[in-house]
Formats: sequence, structure tokens, C-alpha cells
Amino acid sequence: MSVARILNDDELDDTAKAVFADIRATRGTDFINNFWRVLAHDSALLERTWTSLKAVMAPGALDPLTKELLYIAVSASNGCEYCVRSHTAAARARGASEAQLMEAMAVIGMASQTNALATAVQVPVDPVFMTPVIEGSDT
Amino acid sequence: MSVARILNDDELDDTAKAVFADIRATRGTDFINNFWRVLAHDSALLERTWTSLKAVMAPGALDPLTKELLYIAVSASNGCEYCVRSHTAAARARGASEAQLMEAMAVIGMASQTNALATAVQVPVDPVFMTPVIEGSDT
Amino acid sequence: MSVARILNDDELDDTAKAVFADIRATRGTDFINNFWRVLAHDSALLERTWTSLKAVMAPGALDPLTKELLYIAVSASNGCEYCVRSHTAAARARGASEAQLMEAMAVIGMASQTNALATAVQVPVDPVFMTPVIEGSDT
Amino acid sequence: MSVARILNDDELDDTAKAVFADIRATRGTDFINNFWRVLAHDSALLERTWTSLKAVMAPGALDPLTKELLYIAVSASNGCEYCVRSHTAAARARGASEAQLMEAMAVIGMASQTNALATAVQVPVDPVFMTPVIEGSDT
Amino acid sequence: MSVARILNDDELDDTAKAVFADIRATRGTDFINNFWRVLAHDSALLERTWTSLKAVMAPGALDPLTKELLYIAVSASNGCEYCVRSHTAAARARGASEAQLMEAMAVIGMASQTNALATAVQVPVDPVFMTPVIEGSDT
Amino acid sequence: MSVARILNDDELDDTAKAVFADIRATRGTDFINNFWRVLAHDSALLERTWTSLKAVMAPGALDPLTKELLYIAVSASNGCEYCVRSHTAAARARGASEAQLMEAMAVIGMASQTNALATAVQVPVDPVFMTPVIEGSDT
Repeated sequence: MSVARILNDDELDDTAKAVFADIRATRGTDFINNFWRVLAHDSALLERTWTSLKAVMAPGALDPLTKELLYIAVSASNGCEYCVRSHTAAARARGASEAQLMEAMAVIGMASQTNALATAVQVPVDPVFMTPVIEGSDT
Repeated sequence: MSVARILNDDELDDTAKAVFADIRATRGTDFINNFWRVLAHDSALLERTWTSLKAVMAPGALDPLTKELLYIAVSASNGCEYCVRSHTAAARARGASEAQLMEAMAVIGMASQTNALATAVQVPVDPVFMTPVIEGSDT
Repeated sequence: MSVARILNDDELDDTAKAVFADIRATRGTDFINNFWRVLAHDSALLERTWTSLKAVMAPGALDPLTKELLYIAVSASNGCEYCVRSHTAAARARGASEAQLMEAMAVIGMASQTNALATAVQVPVDPVFMTPVIEGSDT
Repeated sequence: MSVARILNDDELDDTAKAVFADIRATRGTDFINNFWRVLAHDSALLERTWTSLKAVMAPGALDPLTKELLYIAVSASNGCEYCVRSHTAAARARGASEAQLMEAMAVIGMASQTNALATAVQVPVDPVFMTPVIEGSDT
Repeated sequence: MSVARILNDDELDDTAKAVFADIRATRGTDFINNFWRVLAHDSALLERTWTSLKAVMAPGALDPLTKELLYIAVSASNGCEYCVRSHTAAARARGASEAQLMEAMAVIGMASQTNALATAVQVPVDPVFMTPVIEGSDT
Repeated sequence: MSVARILNDDELDDTAKAVFADIRATRGTDFINNFWRVLAHDSALLERTWTSLKAVMAPGALDPLTKELLYIAVSASNGCEYCVRSHTAAARARGASEAQLMEAMAVIGMASQTNALATAVQVPVDPVFMTPVIEGSDT
């Protein structure tokens, strides 16, 4: 049970209706998952979130599957069950194989281990890692 | 300054010496960053960590650049400055462009936002997301 | 199912009984939620925790509703379902409207996004933000 | 030093220039802090982030000071130094007294303690807390 | 329901079979918990993880019960229900009394509180705490 | 630089003075670290925090060194540099050897890895781990 009630299609205001229509058109399916049905209680929040998500996850310098794997990595680190499950399904829908998913899990586990070690021992940053790697020339 | 002193090459035991030699051979550089120089206080821990990291980050079903981006995503979520900096440098060394790095940052930010929203509102997982996505057939 | 069994009123030692009596008097209800029934296994821990919570959440320079919203923000960031749910109920009991709760959720989401971006890109702190904002004169 | 170089005003593309102009107009100051100067490497990300932040932090059902305190709570929980410092300064600018700031700190500390206890002992959620508190009627 | 299907003993490859045999021999029980049955989808990951865990948790400078309590502390901080529950059971199996478990919970709660306070107020590290406490002489 | 100015001994109110005196008597040293000097801005918060910390860290069912190691584990997981450094110094002062500290680091790293894996793959809790392990009989 959610903290906020899951809204049905006939309980939406006009802004929320337009967002749901765009989600359906973008994804090519009539299915709207619970995350959006809860955000619809605040249709301005719903619209901002969907608009940003759509822009961020669109193909660009990184392909959509890589972006879904990054999404899983962040979601697992933050302990968000909903997000781990929904974005694992999304990665699968974008063609992730089981071997790719398991390798991503292995990287997530490994990074969590060395993160904890580096923090527990307070390793000082090597001077060579302090140089900005994004300079501005190729963006 | 680290919680543990940074060890020089002439302070290593034989196990640690062998690990440093393998890091140098694998990476094709004489440089050993501080993380390994601190772990060398416990050479069994050093060896296990390096052996696992080498296996996890090797090319497999995912390419090394994707793995470095996943590493950054986890490290940022865990707030590990050392790891964010060292793995951003590693991603750059593996060919990440500025546009790719900035897009990864955008996904990390977006995921953190929807993670927090989903947790704050306690969105119930849609039944369709409860199906295991790793079945075992193609691994 | 809890890691520790939920204690009933007739299983409490004298310290725990006194704490439960004070919770009931303070809140004006006979209901004691599971959190306290589990802490009661260590009645010194129960007493310290309740005494501190009662002091912290009392009206002061901030009103009780603002404090409950802050509690939700921390609880969502830490991924504590129990705490998100119980303090959302508490905020509601203190008069939070649905619009206020949804706006708090939006701030929680936004902050999580910019937190992750600032950490992922390792933005250096502007010198102007390094000045202490609490000087000691008005406390 | 940031992972990405801090951009000056004369290195911005047109989108970034427009965002900086809006930040200056909205805040009534010429000062632009480093967070935005780094995001400017990806001006679409800069624009989305600023537009959302401006909407979220505007007066609504919650006042701007309460929103800044919530921002600090999330930022402290996520361990983001940049965000803790910049939003504490912002809260101060919106009139937060030293007593209000210290009380917010006390709530953040208290919530972190009971979050950890509830998770460590895996307290089961009381049925009364499972009812949705956002029903949709007053939004 | 897991993201990955729980594997039965007759679905394992030879590497996974050998790991399961070693888990059984090491623990002196036929029972294999779900964590390992899921990792078995990637038997190289399974083998690396088990080998490291077995080495880390073996008696050494710290006794196994202390190590299990540390495991619970990390797991509670990371919000991992599975890990909190399985390692609390393991601590119990290694002789932890209820009083010891509750005291560990109290430390976990206290540390979480002062962690949050120190971060929220950005307490500067006292110079005396910057000296490395691990020098290398007694390892 | 802290968000709140570090207070000197001659800026304390009577409550804070009494707490500082008790810290000095308890620890047998005149040194008061920055954490307490910052909390002193709100002497009620200072007093509650010190009183609780003193009770929690006193010898009981667990010895003081084990408690300091648990404190480090939580602090590393929460990414609190101040707390990692001050409690590592405290553990050292309570007799922790370098080997013990490095083993604790190894457990912290290992737990972080399996936490992340269990969450990323959403391993379902084995029924045997759902039984309460704290029953109430030996406390």
C-alpha cells in the first residue's frame, strides 16, 4: 500500500491526462506503472519529472541500454526496490541479456566494496586524479 | 592524510609485491594509486580485492567503458570522492567523451530523484515488475 | 516479522512501563506503535530514545509540523519504510495537507537529484559558502 | 578541483547564457555559484535542472524557508558537503535563525538514529500506518 | 520474488556445484540460502564472492562474532533487509546473546545520529585525528 | 570551516560547561574535540547527545573496543569522514591493533559488496531468517 493512493485514469486533471497520453505514445503501450499514478496527485511534479526523464533517457552520446544499466546501479545503491525492479524490466525490454545484467550486478557489488574500503581507510586522492577530465572542448 | 600510512614499494611483503607487479603489467604503467598502497597493509585483502576487480572489469558481456560508467554511478551514489575521481579518470582513459560523461551524470541525477520520490511516497511495486527477469536460460 | 519479538504490555519491566505511560500521556492515545514495543527489549535504550525524541520534536524555534516534514525527508533519504510511513501519518495528524506533503516530496526528489549531480561532478565549494552561518549570537 | 572545469560567463552557449540570466534575475544578484557553472558543460541538463529547481522551491503550500530546511535534511542524509553548505547559506538568507538551524540539525540527528534502529531491528510496519495518507481530495 | 530466479541444485554448472559443496562443508549444514542460489546464475561471481567471504569471516585478529556484528552494522546502514536478517541469524548462531544484539543496535543508532549531526553541521576534523593510526609496524 | 563556529570554553552557557566538565572527567583528558564544540551552540542538544553516547559506549554486554569498531563500520557506511577518523583514533586508544583495524575494514568492504548484490538482485528472504532472533528471555 502506498502512502498516496494510486490514481485511475478517470481521476486525472488535464495536465496529468496529457502526460499519461505522452507516456503511452512514447512507450507504445497502454500500460502506465504505479510510479506515475502516484505522482499524478501533483500534476506539475508529474509533468516536470516525466519531461526530464524522457529527455535524459533518450538516445544521445550513450545508448538507452547503457542508461538503463546506470539507472539500476544508482537504484541498487540507494536501496530503492521499486526502481531496481522497474528499471531491470526496462533494461530487459531494451535487449539486456542475462549475462549483461549479471555482469552489471558484479560491477555494482565490486564498486560498493571498494567505495566502502576507500572511505573506511580515508584514502587521500592522488594528485593526478584532481585534474578536471571534462574540459569543455568536445561537448 | 589516510587513516593508514601510504606504503612505498620497499615496504611491501612478497604477496603485495606480486600484486603490484600484476597491476603494473595489466595497466601498462608503473603508476600505482594510493588505494592499493593503503590496502597493502593487509596483503591478503590487497590480493583478494585486486584479483576480483581485475576479473569484474575485464571485457565480457559488457565493454570496459560501460563498466567504468557503472562504477562512477555507484561511487557517486555512495558519496565516495576517491572512487568518483579515480573512475572518472579511468572512464576518460577508456575513451569516454565529455558528452558521454555529462550524459552519465544526468542519468545519475535523474535516477536519484525518482529513487527518492518512489521511496518517499512508498510506491507499491506493479505486479508485472515482480517477475524474475533473470531466468537462467542465456547465461 | 521483526528481528526482535514485539512485546506486549504485560512483558515490560518497570522502566519500560513508565516510558509507555509517558508516550500515552504525551500523545493522548492508548496506542503504542511497534517501534517502541521492539526497543522495549532494552529498556534503557527505550528510555533514552523516547526522552530524546520527545525533547527534539517538541515545539521550539520550529513548529511540530515542520519537524515531522524534516523527519520524512531524512527517512526517505535513508530508505526507512517504517519511518517514512509512521512520520507521514504523524505529519498528517499535525495538520499536513495533501498539497503540503506532495510539495515536500518534490523538494526531497529535487534535493536528491542535485546532491547526486554535485557529488558525481565533485563541484568545489564556493568560498562564500565556507563562512559559518551559525555564529552564536542569537541562540 | 571539480571533475569538470568551472566555466566562465564567456564560455557559455546561448542556452546556458539564458539560464544564467534567469538565475540572476530570479535571485537578484550577479553571483552564480559553481554548481551551475559546472552543469553548463551540458546546457540542456543545466536548463532542465534550473527550471525544475525554480519551480520546486517557489512559494506554494510550503514556504521557502521550510523548503530550504528540507533541502538541508536530504543533503546531510546523502552526505553532500556542497549541498549542505549552499542550502544552509540559502536558509540563512531566507531568514533562518541560529536556533532554527540548530533545531533542524537536532531533528536530522534524531531521525537518523531511529531510522537506523528501525532498520537494524526490522520493525514491522503497524497496520494503521499502511493506509494511504494522500487520498487526492484536497490537492 | 527475486529479480533472478532461485536456482535448484540440479541447475548448477560445475563451478557452482563445487562452491555449494564448499559452503556445505564449511558451515556443516546442507542448507544453502537464497543469496548463493541467485548468484549461481554467474558462477564466476558466485565463486569469487564465496571465496572472499570465507576468507574475510574466518577467525583472525577479530573473532567471528565481532565480525558478524560488524556485518549487521554495515547492513543496517545500507538498508539491506536480506543482509540484516541473515547476519543477525549468523551472529545468533555464533553465540550472540539478546543483550549483545540489543547493545549493538544501540551503537548503530547512536553512530547514525552523530554521523548525521557531524555532516549536517560540517564539523572540521581536529588536526589530531588526521595522523594515520595504521603505521605498518604490527601487521 | 564548520557551518557553525567552533566555540571556545569561555563562550559556553552553564549547561555546556557542565557537559564539557563531564567529558573531561570521563575521558581523563582536557582535550575536547570539535564535534562537541559545535553542538555547544545548542546546549540541550549537546547534553542529550553526550549523555546518550556515554551510556551507549560504556562497557556492557559488549566491550568498548567492539563498540568502537561498530561505530567505524556505521560511519564508513554513512560516508562521515569526521566520524571515521575520530572513532578510528578512539579504537586505537582502546587497544585496537593494526591487524584488527585492517580486518574490520575487510569486513566493512565485504558487507558492502554483498549488501549491494542482494539489493541489486532483490534476493527474497529465506523463511528461516524471518523468525525473530530476539525473544526476550535472556535480556
